[in-house]
Amino acid sequence: MKVTLAQLNYHTGNFEYNSNKIIEAINEAKKNNIDLIVFSELSVCGYPPRDFLEFNDFINLCISNVHLIASHCVGIAAIVGSPTVNPKIEGKDLFNSAYFLSNGKVEQIINKTLLPNYDVFDEYRYFEPNTVFEIVNYKDKKIAITICEDLWNLNPNPMYVQSPMDELIKQNPDLIINIAASPFSKTQIQTRLDVLKNNAIKYNLPIIYINHIGAQTQLIFDGGSCIIASDGNVLKQLGYFKEEVLNVDLNELNSFKPIEDLKQNDTINYANIEEALVLGIKEYFRKQGFSKAILGLSGGIDSALVLYLASKALGNQNVLAVMLPSQYSSNHSISDSEKLVENLGVKSDKIPIEDTFNTIQKTLAKQFENTEFGIAEENIQSRSRAVILMALANKFGYILLNTSNKSELAVGYGTLYGDMCGGISVIGDLYKTEVFELCEFINRNEEIIPKNIITKAPSAELRPNQKDSDSLPDYKILDAVLNLYIEQRKGPKEIIDLGFDEALVKRTLKMVNSNEWKRLQAPPVLRVSLKAFGPGRRMPIVAKYLG
Amino acid sequence: MKVTLAQLNYHTGNFEYNSNKIIEAINEAKKNNIDLIVFSELSVCGYPPRDFLEFNDFINLCISNVHLIASHCVGIAAIVGSPTVNPKIEGKDLFNSAYFLSNGKVEQIINKTLLPNYDVFDEYRYFEPNTVFEIVNYKDKKIAITICEDLWNLNPNPMYVQSPMDELIKQNPDLIINIAASPFSKTQIQTRLDVLKNNAIKYNLPIIYINHIGAQTQLIFDGGSCIIASDGNVLKQLGYFKEEVLNVDLNELNSFKPIEDLKQNDTINYANIEEALVLGIKEYFRKQGFSKAILGLSGGIDSALVLYLASKALGNQNVLAVMLPSQYSSNHSISDSEKLVENLGVKSDKIPIEDTFNTIQKTLAKQFENTEFGIAEENIQSRSRAVILMALANKFGYILLNTSNKSELAVGYGTLYGDMCGGISVIGDLYKTEVFELCEFINRNEEIIPKNIITKAPSAELRPNQKDSDSLPDYKILDAVLNLYIEQRKGPKEIIDLGFDEALVKRTLKMVNSNEWKRLQAPPVLRVSLKAFGPGRRMPIVAKYLG
Repeated sequence: MKVTLAQLNYHTGNFEYNSNKIIEAINEAKKNNIDLIVFSELSVCGYPPRDFLEFNDFINLCISNVHLIASHCVGIAAIVGSPTVNPKIEGKDLFNSAYFLSNGKVEQIINKTLLPNYDVFDEYRYFEPNTVFEIVNYKDKKIAITICEDLWNLNPNPMYVQSPMDELIKQNPDLIINIAASPFSKTQIQTRLDVLKNNAIKYNLPIIYINHIGAQTQLIFDGGSCIIASDGNVLKQLGYFKEEVLNVDLNELNSFKPIEDLKQNDTINYANIEEALVLGIKEYFRKQGFSKAILGLSGGIDSALVLYLASKALGNQNVLAVMLPSQYSSNHSISDSEKLVENLGVKSDKIPIEDTFNTIQKTLAKQFENTEFGIAEENIQSRSRAVILMALANKFGYILLNTSNKSELAVGYGTLYGDMCGGISVIGDLYKTEVFELCEFINRNEEIIPKNIITKAPSAELRPNQKDSDSLPDYKILDAVLNLYIEQRKGPKEIIDLGFDEALVKRTLKMVNSNEWKRLQAPPVLRVSLKAFGPGRRMPIVAKYLG
Repeated sequence: MKVTLAQLNYHTGNFEYNSNKIIEAINEAKKNNIDLIVFSELSVCGYPPRDFLEFNDFINLCISNVHLIASHCVGIAAIVGSPTVNPKIEGKDLFNSAYFLSNGKVEQIINKTLLPNYDVFDEYRYFEPNTVFEIVNYKDKKIAITICEDLWNLNPNPMYVQSPMDELIKQNPDLIINIAASPFSKTQIQTRLDVLKNNAIKYNLPIIYINHIGAQTQLIFDGGSCIIASDGNVLKQLGYFKEEVLNVDLNELNSFKPIEDLKQNDTINYANIEEALVLGIKEYFRKQGFSKAILGLSGGIDSALVLYLASKALGNQNVLAVMLPSQYSSNHSISDSEKLVENLGVKSDKIPIEDTFNTIQKTLAKQFENTEFGIAEENIQSRSRAVILMALANKFGYILLNTSNKSELAVGYGTLYGDMCGGISVIGDLYKTEVFELCEFINRNEEIIPKNIITKAPSAELRPNQKDSDSLPDYKILDAVLNLYIEQRKGPKEIIDLGFDEALVKRTLKMVNSNEWKRLQAPPVLRVSLKAFGPGRRMPIVAKYLG
């Protein structure tokens, strides 16, 4: 049996776009005498459809597009993902389904059993879990079709009380097909391969795995579709971060040489992170029909990194870097920025904010009389910059890129409606120490980001001689504590027991918890960790825990 | 058996506060020779705890506080709500539990079966559903303890495949106790009573129902705890929107006269909405330790209504109304605002934005050369106001109240980082037509909100002679379409079939869907409908559906 793995980039809710893409791939596969072509989870509507699923109109469009696609499945079979209506009165109204299409029609529907409902996932919000287990018989093969999470219940503390493969294996399948929507994170590539390998070995079956690529707002899909042998070896591997289609003859699996294990050790793969962020930016713009980005270039490392990534994603001619100096900006901020602009070949402008800052202070002179320069005055500067950047964005159709990093988002070291503005937060899931490391990685062959931007002490430059270290712990220590609290959900005692200073830990966790209100109004953050700020982390605002 | 219904106001994550309040109520009940005192769902940690539940440290605090409370339950029993650790390896790590405390210890733990995972609810994110059904035997009564949603599976299209009472009834209980966390909405008071009555009648059992009161960010809890007779009559009813404790002797239930049914017809009860919004503001401030609010008073109806509600919630001496006129502000905007300020006795200030607006335009003169006055210039005005309001907030410790209504949030008729700023959105769940109706209600006895503010044509006043009706359909029609789309999840065909103009419907739904990115950065919205913007409505941003 000849199978095509179609790792494609879908657009949520854009049925015409998705169906055309799927049908084109089916027609191409037909030309190659393929027996079965497999698309990823919820490929018909895109992933994640979120509350669109609550609209009958949306579900009707899903179903009618499945039938349209089915009509092209003559002489070939296809597996596509789409919601299905639950025929029973009891339970939720929908299933998350794999449609097996053949003979020009829907031949079989396999529903998802394990519905992820953690981090960014909300599938139990919409879907009823499957309770009926059926193999698909096609040509000479008995296929166990599973949907993403269905294979993810292997760990020692399983989240679900059953595993669908434990049921399906009783029907003696010849192979497992898993259609997935598994987003990227720093550790996901290795974790995902391990899960697939462990399933192959446990059930002694080869696995064909098809994932999404592309990005949908915060979520970046890296692809990495593959074929795993029943001994756990990776036989074929589709590319990461790109659309790719692979034809294989299942009868030849035994002749494939295993791909060398790309076991990654604990160090972060910055090449992947760079590709993920570039894809995240590119898709945010392309799928919304935008082409031009604007950002404020402060002379600091965060905006420098965002400018580099944006210029790579959108082309240097489509990015405008604006320097917005005030009386507190140091000279090197401008000269470093100018050097970076030159290195990247992006457009730039310089718009001093001093007049605006002074006018607002004059406007408030009566109210602010006899008060000292403080946070209010600092924030006026940051917000004046935002007003100017947004004015340019509104006037000329730019999208403002946010340049906040995860460390400052975590502790609230940023100005809401000021430097926290933007359509998308590019590096909001990178701690400051990771920002440094990614810049070093980018500079590995040549100095793209001027060295001085990387080596100088971080500063918001909102008052004379200000340094981040005046207000925050050393970033190495801060980021370690933040990682333990945010990613690993350690409490204060557990973190202190690891050797961190008690006062520092308590102060840090308090800062994180008391700034939820600020983060709630932050732009969507491109997710590259297992716990990014945004829909995957849902904290109370009016609360008092560690606060 | 004598029972106390304790309808109290908890603070999420504030264990000391919650436990003290619970223990105080227990001690008071002891003095009255009460046998059993009942608190609401997750009363120990507050509701909703959200992702705090992912921290072992938080769970340990829950459990240790349950034991602390239990130690006070000597000579009395208590039911409190708290998460429990799932002893099994398989399944999620927690249950949502009712603890039955007696003899100074935890006597029995009843877990929640039906886990709401729709709208604002995410309980399946944290909790494993219960599968074991046990009655609690106490004194002469067999009690079926259920937790909120456990009684909500009665409708003709039930969301769950089982109902816990169908199991518990087999053990012949004498009564049902339901501990709940059921938030307010326009229709919830009646719906909730209907659900309880239908359960009482179906199982032929009296029900003791205990709900939360108070507010947690967006969610407002109205209380309304009650006792329902087995024939469905309401026997006792605790107050709405206030803490209250009621002692009853269960043996006297038969002697209670049913309370007349407060059946509400389809008209909205604006007295409840007013109380809900006032409570929502009050609690947002009190629980975060804030006392003073600031807002921009435009002369329009939205900011007028918010000023009235804030002054009622926080006291008129704690609210500062700032008029921020520009060259496009009409004279009546100031005079109407001044009259309202006088009526309410709040503090006020007048800070013209003309200089700021002019300076920013001058700063951008080169960039904006040969362009026409447009959205960019309008937004500069709105954002200049926000910078000034936030500067005052930052300087003097005010919290900025957002004044956007649901209609403008829906269609994106507002300036992000401008009039969309604020710590909390007070009327963001009221359509413009409801804003008018609530103002008429407030004015029912005397003219509190000046009549001219209500009768004049709505305008953003960001260019000469601007009216909302230049850009938007008539609010009556717009709001009807929005309600069908947002609350009732009707698709375009269904709405058009109801007689609405096709072009208007398509344009409206497109505006709603293409403004998700703006709403994502809006403040939390006090929820008074069944579908408010915020955590209960989760829409993709990078998507193309009706867009």
